[in-house]
Amino acid sequence: MTIAYPNGSGKIFEKPMPSKKKAIEFGKRGMSFEEEINQSNEYYLTRGIAVIHKKPTPVQIVRVDYPSRNRAKITEAYFRQASTTDYNGVFQGKYLDFEAKETKNKTSFPFANFHEHQITHMENVLSQNGIAFVLLYFSSLNRVFFYPASKLIVRFKEKNTRKSIKLSDIECEGIEITLGFAPRIPYLDAVQVFLQMLTKTD
Amino acid sequence: MTIAYPNGSGKIFEKPMPSKKKAIEFGKRGMSFEEEINQSNEYYLTRGIAVIHKKPTPVQIVRVDYPSRNRAKITEAYFRQASTTDYNGVFQGKYLDFEAKETKNKTSFPFANFHEHQITHMENVLSQNGIAFVLLYFSSLNRVFFYPASKLIVRFKEKNTRKSIKLSDIECEGIEITLGFAPRIPYLDAVQVFLQMLTKTD
Repeated sequence: MTIAYPNGSGKIFEKPMPSKKKAIEFGKRGMSFEEEINQSNEYYLTRGIAVIHKKPTPVQIVRVDYPSRNRAKITEAYFRQASTTDYNGVFQGKYLDFEAKETKNKTSFPFANFHEHQITHMENVLSQNGIAFVLLYFSSLNRVFFYPASKLIVRFKEKNTRKSIKLSDIECEGIEITLGFAPRIPYLDAVQVFLQMLTKTD
Repeated sequence: MTIAYPNGSGKIFEKPMPSKKKAIEFGKRGMSFEEEINQSNEYYLTRGIAVIHKKPTPVQIVRVDYPSRNRAKITEAYFRQASTTDYNGVFQGKYLDFEAKETKNKTSFPFANFHEHQITHMENVLSQNGIAFVLLYFSSLNRVFFYPASKLIVRFKEKNTRKSIKLSDIECEGIEITLGFAPRIPYLDAVQVFLQMLTKTD
């Protein structure tokens, strides 16, 4: 639940070995997809590129003890369902809002990964002219896609007839993110491409 | 820590009694300033005016028990310091970010209410062209002000010489919010006035 950021790790990733040509695989680095995104956000923040944070896990606190003056100890609490997506923030004046999901599937992304309230939240964000999307990670393929909320919402509403989004549709309607070292998941590159596409269709 | 929203309470506030002329006082309604803001956000959300949420309280979870299959029980956790402000979201394509604070003082607002990391976060937001501000509640006076982060940051950095912001300065540099019924704290009115002021000075 809690993420520890390695201190000063950015420096290591800024200068990758030139001979390193193998595709980057999250699993082999021992980091989860979420941790990779958090680290990318840290990269964007420290360089003044964007201010994006993961929201804390919502917890309903029932009982708190005070064993010492310095630190309150929560002794009874429960997980609550979030009413929004996990990530939001600001990038060049634009409001960004997204959810990060992963699957082991190789040919499609299951709708079971998304909750009704997240879809509703993304609809609300779009109606306020915010930029809403999902980052989809196919862990078996080591591929990550930016996929616009507008497409996800339409497909999610077809979920009585289909249980997932085909990879071929995601390839067509989304933007693949080339994984890197600094940042690990340069998703803002995809956001910029997406914003340019939006401008052209206006 | 957790807020229970009264169901369907919006209806009650939409039709205040016409004879009701007294100033609205939060205390007498048994709601905290935070609850009033949350309810205002709920009002804005359900009417499609803006999508603003309070972030969950950050908690470091150490131990989780599973007494039944249905519900995980957190049995050891600690409060963590937030790295951002409490509220953010999107309003007509604009990224909004704010913190809500209150004081019992009658003539000034103490800096002790603000943390260094919140000030840093607001600076980051401003550098990305987000709209950052604080809502300041003088509980003894029953007055609420919108106060821009740009002003707060400057004054906060003078805190070696002063320990607070004078009410007269807040009156001059901020925008007073006329408290209402629906929403209780119509702070987006102040945001709109502020945005108009920004446009004029551009």
